Amino acid sequence: MYRAPVEEIAFTLKRVCGLEDLQDNPHHAELGDDLVDAILNEAGRFASEEIAPLNSVADKHGTPLVDGNVSTPPGWREAYHAWIEGGWNGLTAAPEHGGQGLPQMLSAAAMEMWNSGSMAFAIGPTLTIGAVEAMEKHASDELKAKYLEKLVSGEWMGTMNLTEPQAGSDLNALKAKAERADDGSYRVFGQKIFITYGDHDLTENIIHMVLARLPDAPAGTRGISLFLVPKFLVNDDGSLGERNDVKVAGVEHKMGIHGSPTCTMVYGDEGGARAWLIGEENRGLACMFTMMNNARLAVGIQGLGVAERAYQHALGYAVDRRQGKAPGDNSEGMSPIARHPDIKRMLLGMKSRTQVARAVCYACAHAIDMSNVVDNEVEQAFWNDRASLLTPIAKALSTDFGVEVASLGVQIHGGMGFIEETGAAQHLRDARIAPIYEGTNGIQSIDLVLRKLPLAGGEHIKGFIDELNGIASEVAASNRPEFGAASERLVAGIKDLEEATDYMLAALSEGRVADALSGATPYLRIAGLALGGALLCKGALRSSEEPAARMAERTLLARSYCETLLGETAGLRSDILLSAEAITAFDAEALAS
Amino acid sequence: MYRAPVEEIAFTLKRVCGLEDLQDNPHHAELGDDLVDAILNEAGRFASEEIAPLNSVADKHGTPLVDGNVSTPPGWREAYHAWIEGGWNGLTAAPEHGGQGLPQMLSAAAMEMWNSGSMAFAIGPTLTIGAVEAMEKHASDELKAKYLEKLVSGEWMGTMNLTEPQAGSDLNALKAKAERADDGSYRVFGQKIFITYGDHDLTENIIHMVLARLPDAPAGTRGISLFLVPKFLVNDDGSLGERNDVKVAGVEHKMGIHGSPTCTMVYGDEGGARAWLIGEENRGLACMFTMMNNARLAVGIQGLGVAERAYQHALGYAVDRRQGKAPGDNSEGMSPIARHPDIKRMLLGMKSRTQVARAVCYACAHAIDMSNVVDNEVEQAFWNDRASLLTPIAKALSTDFGVEVASLGVQIHGGMGFIEETGAAQHLRDARIAPIYEGTNGIQSIDLVLRKLPLAGGEHIKGFIDELNGIASEVAASNRPEFGAASERLVAGIKDLEEATDYMLAALSEGRVADALSGATPYLRIAGLALGGALLCKGALRSSEEPAARMAERTLLARSYCETLLGETAGLRSDILLSAEAITAFDAEALAS
Repeated sequence: MYRAPVEEIAFTLKRVCGLEDLQDNPHHAELGDDLVDAILNEAGRFASEEIAPLNSVADKHGTPLVDGNVSTPPGWREAYHAWIEGGWNGLTAAPEHGGQGLPQMLSAAAMEMWNSGSMAFAIGPTLTIGAVEAMEKHASDELKAKYLEKLVSGEWMGTMNLTEPQAGSDLNALKAKAERADDGSYRVFGQKIFITYGDHDLTENIIHMVLARLPDAPAGTRGISLFLVPKFLVNDDGSLGERNDVKVAGVEHKMGIHGSPTCTMVYGDEGGARAWLIGEENRGLACMFTMMNNARLAVGIQGLGVAERAYQHALGYAVDRRQGKAPGDNSEGMSPIARHPDIKRMLLGMKSRTQVARAVCYACAHAIDMSNVVDNEVEQAFWNDRASLLTPIAKALSTDFGVEVASLGVQIHGGMGFIEETGAAQHLRDARIAPIYEGTNGIQSIDLVLRKLPLAGGEHIKGFIDELNGIASEVAASNRPEFGAASERLVAGIKDLEEATDYMLAALSEGRVADALSGATPYLRIAGLALGGALLCKGALRSSEEPAARMAERTLLARSYCETLLGETAGLRSDILLSAEAITAFDAEALAS
Repeated sequence: MYRAPVEEIAFTLKRVCGLEDLQDNPHHAELGDDLVDAILNEAGRFASEEIAPLNSVADKHGTPLVDGNVSTPPGWREAYHAWIEGGWNGLTAAPEHGGQGLPQMLSAAAMEMWNSGSMAFAIGPTLTIGAVEAMEKHASDELKAKYLEKLVSGEWMGTMNLTEPQAGSDLNALKAKAERADDGSYRVFGQKIFITYGDHDLTENIIHMVLARLPDAPAGTRGISLFLVPKFLVNDDGSLGERNDVKVAGVEHKMGIHGSPTCTMVYGDEGGARAWLIGEENRGLACMFTMMNNARLAVGIQGLGVAERAYQHALGYAVDRRQGKAPGDNSEGMSPIARHPDIKRMLLGMKSRTQVARAVCYACAHAIDMSNVVDNEVEQAFWNDRASLLTPIAKALSTDFGVEVASLGVQIHGGMGFIEETGAAQHLRDARIAPIYEGTNGIQSIDLVLRKLPLAGGEHIKGFIDELNGIASEVAASNRPEFGAASERLVAGIKDLEEATDYMLAALSEGRVADALSGATPYLRIAGLALGGALLCKGALRSSEEPAARMAERTLLARSYCETLLGETAGLRSDILLSAEAITAFDAEALAS
């Protein structure tokens, strides 16, 4: 089924991604190894024992709309309630609202395991956590008092309502309307699509975060406000009042994550949905960005979680299934396919991609955490920049890797991989949404190139590359033959990243925006691949205190990644440097006419 | 919907892949341009008007098993009968059995369009054609007289029964049994899985080709015989007799191609299925290989067909859908997403991969056709080798490209791509089987390295590389600035192929089989990428008689492919040269324990 890789997760948190920096920080005096290990072990147990068995049940059952209400798969309610009783919902929320105030790194680790258990299950609470974060930063004390504790505990769940049919990636085009009411509240009208957990039967109330425009709002994104719209109105004593004017108009039939209801929501069909402003009028986008940045990392973690599950699934199959005779295998009968070189290549590719996704996501969480605990402005600016830089990489690389790993998992299963009963196909169908939502990976790449490369006048990315080179030098200095060609491949990969970065910075400074955008996707991939190689090597370098077999395993993984996947950077670099003219000249509209 | 790209197909057949060689050959005196164009136009019309509209209907409906019989989707029967009435089933079969005796190239072109219409539909006749080929070459005159005409016309359909639960890629492990009967016929017993179109209601009879072992057969693949097992026995007058002892025990629930029934077949549960030997006893594998080689090209064409459909689908969406503002777009409102550089990159990647798959599949069909028409042994050996070399590349590259193109298509659709109603996800779900069946792409790569590289003592592959270099020289000599960096990138790609080939040939001659197998997958990819670049460039070079806009379009496509995708070869080369030691050292079984 799924065995939570707690040891690997703890190692990656502590030795590769800097959890120790947080443990040494007075803000997290509570964060001893015992607590960390207890949380990881218990989250892993819950993910493997309580969530994982529901994954295929939910895939088959889906979330049908019955008499205007969404019904969740069998076992879903029980698992969710066990989950909130375990206190998992409030891991990172502020203690004054019932949260545990733990760092994002631990949340990332736990979320990885829940997503391995079931991505469709884990995404619901992810949205609630986003709503909590937006409210903690932007909501009035009154709203906080009324809603936050129950959202933090998970007694109620939250949603994010951005998308409309004509406004997906481009929020300028939002049309949902809001009107001011006499009592200081608002009325919201409009249709929203693709609302994850927009309706369900897991909790008694659902708190919707809705973007809409006031009548006198400026056009574009500067005229968008954020509103809280509860499914049931909440009385002053906290009890539930009447049903609000919001209903679910449909549930999408999707390629994957069938256990996660994706709803079309209609607000204000019967006079207006009662709504309360979060933050200031026309400043809704800023509030939403609070939710979106963390949501982007959370989606990266989905890619990671599914990758780990798919890898374990394929590994188990490859060890059991026997076909043919592997070279050098002198045992009786057919070989387990895990002994065939081509299957080994695929398994290594799955494992190394998964470990890269893990390290990149945790490194991103680390940067967010550091920005919250350092006490001087220079460091804070640095860690803010680092989190900003890593967020699009963590989102896009990990979700692309999630799809690649799940697809390799299908391939390793051969014909059985295409049969739904096997479960390998579900991982691929589930994983395929992650490169799309929370900003497509194309948009992440554009964000990286247009907004993140210029941070600190282009110096932040250069410092980042220097850090990678530092790791490469350590690999070289280690003089360990077990690293094979890892050192030279890592140096070459980072060099490709440097040249691509120079090209991008020059294009930006010369105003050649189309040139920069043409290479954005391969640029993000180079950056992710090089960072991944460095982090895998760092893990191999830092595992000298581990048992020798673990160190050998980590070194082999880093080496094989550098010798196989990292070679991609050469082609990506030449792509970036060469292809902008052809891409710009391509006239798709002429072909379609 | 789907518009058959007849002009592009005709151009690729004639100017890029050598249909003109066949038209000049006395064996195909009938093959004038008029006939070719008429066939392509009519096949395209049938595919777009009759088949394509059924594709999503079939995806939703599937092929349920009702009272022991498989029922096909609404409209399927009518379309199939229109199809056989059109004479499409016997395109390549011999005229003496009612076929049209046309070359594989034309069949490949027609099959592309039928697969674009619906892969699940087109795969049924593909199996029948395989059965026809095996019978034409190996069956007795008596069997031919009884079965062949109706298989050629499509009045009956055929199946291939190889796989058993324990014997997928490894046919040594086959267990199905056959016994000799007194009347010279046989009785077959056993279970077969993954039998495409194993049962259905399209035709009155189904003719199964079944591999089984005689009691005194040697172990392994030298003890396998091929049998013909009709669903209904056939009387001497050609009328149908009683039901044979074969039944469908189940239909798989698959990730895609829901319109194609994948059956578990049980033979001989009630005393033995009546069977007739095809070819000689214990020589069944040779007969089956006749079917399998062409089936491998046919599966490559499935990848191509789905890629073309997915590309058209995504192009249409990208031109209609408006979001954001593309750089340099001064028009009113939001830009069609087709104007955004990152979307252009994806569309170009889809279009160029599709055109590469087309050219590689047609080139493979050309080699098969040439081997059938040349009249001296040297040329025949050459074209046999060429077909052998190109078959695994056509199968694996085109099916990998099929998945990549379909996945890019989902990505271009954004959130809509994940919603089944849109249809983009179906292309990906359908395409995903093609890298698996008819020999996984890993097996194709192994076949290429172990069996095809040594052809003609390693000289065939070297000659092939020389041909690619010839095209690269033509590009350089053309001195057309529109080619951008295509010439240098093509030269570099072919150089990578050469170095990888030298490595592989050395590994083989030194008996380092595991080293060769470790790099088999990237080796096939380099070979396919380099060949693809050369064929795209050849198309651009040969289009000087076309309208200037078409020539510019082809040149831009070749250029962008060489500047973007072809760069992959650098990493693949270093992968092959470096990674064997790490891959060999990887012990998956230790990790799983």
